[in-house]
Amino acid sequence: MSRPKLQIALDHNDLEQALADVFQVGDIVDIIEIGTILCLQEGRKAISCIRSMFPRKTIVADTKCADAGGTVAKNVTDAGADFMTVICCATLPTMEAAQKEVKALQVELYGDWTYEQAAEWRRIGIQQVIYHQSRDALLSGETWGERDLTKVKKLIEMGFAVSVTGGLNVETLKLFAGIEVETFIAGRGISSADDPAKAANDFKQEMIRIWGE
Amino acid sequence: MSRPKLQIALDHNDLEQALADVFQVGDIVDIIEIGTILCLQEGRKAISCIRSMFPRKTIVADTKCADAGGTVAKNVTDAGADFMTVICCATLPTMEAAQKEVKALQVELYGDWTYEQAAEWRRIGIQQVIYHQSRDALLSGETWGERDLTKVKKLIEMGFAVSVTGGLNVETLKLFAGIEVETFIAGRGISSADDPAKAANDFKQEMIRIWGE
Repeated sequence: MSRPKLQIALDHNDLEQALADVFQVGDIVDIIEIGTILCLQEGRKAISCIRSMFPRKTIVADTKCADAGGTVAKNVTDAGADFMTVICCATLPTMEAAQKEVKALQVELYGDWTYEQAAEWRRIGIQQVIYHQSRDALLSGETWGERDLTKVKKLIEMGFAVSVTGGLNVETLKLFAGIEVETFIAGRGISSADDPAKAANDFKQEMIRIWGE
Repeated sequence: MSRPKLQIALDHNDLEQALADVFQVGDIVDIIEIGTILCLQEGRKAISCIRSMFPRKTIVADTKCADAGGTVAKNVTDAGADFMTVICCATLPTMEAAQKEVKALQVELYGDWTYEQAAEWRRIGIQQVIYHQSRDALLSGETWGERDLTKVKKLIEMGFAVSVTGGLNVETLKLFAGIEVETFIAGRGISSADDPAKAANDFKQEMIRIWGE
């Protein structure tokens, strides 16, 4: 079982704060995500600035696109993103349009979705999904549990590379031991730490302890 | 039956093009929407620039927010938006968080949603929904039909102010005669016209012809 990747979600309200953090942790993490909040606040410049700093790093634009998939995908690709996200309730034509314009498309799983929909996503060639504990759900008291882990395992069985996100910290990683998670996405678990670089390294060390090099 | 409002959706790829169009039609339309594409390309600046040009016009930030509702709503409100959109598959906690930070929240209806969900939105105080023919669905050959009109009428019966959008032009408005649509949203139907101001006025004249002053 290979070590999951570590992705930093830059969910800052402005480019300045995002750059301060990514400057510290960009070389440690495997993937840099331009979070939805940052995309909406700073636009394509958030992607292009970070691409210019990290020319060889995988960059995700977390647009949570719901429509106009082709245009949004072309725009984030032009700005320097490798992956982009669509929301799970986007229509198949939206996803198909987006797929043509970006290296890889990731479906963000929110609210009500079904395995039947997931099978459709596989059928049109989508390989990546993001299993997301909603920030607002976490704030209202929900947390990771067996129900989540069962869904993650089922999605992996369906052939998806599954990214996992939402309120993760170094302590919660071991909940996923034995599960072939593709990527763990951490936001404030890294960027709100006193020492973001240390926090990113702590995540990586714990992942190596659980999943090996 | 009062005349529906006319909303221009600015779905441009850059601020320059959006400003050129809104400069021509902003005074004619009732509501100015900063479209998702423009939000993602230019960030909060797209909202704040247009707010500065039209200090008294209703402005919608079409964020199609799916998570972090409170933060996104606060950010677009700070930038000058009156309304913002959430996607229908957002969780209720996301919608509730967003509602606290914005004058009015609009739920964008995409893909699979149910009247049971819509009743929940009413229960938490949401008054506005957007019935959307997906751009990508339109591109793949779908169009407005009786099925859509039935849904729009049902949503109005549930107490929603319903905005209608997706491939609308002056000719399609009469399909909605007799239905108390709150707002018609036109994008390229206005901004791609040779004379956007004339196109906006044509929309308004046809709405007055059908629904009266």
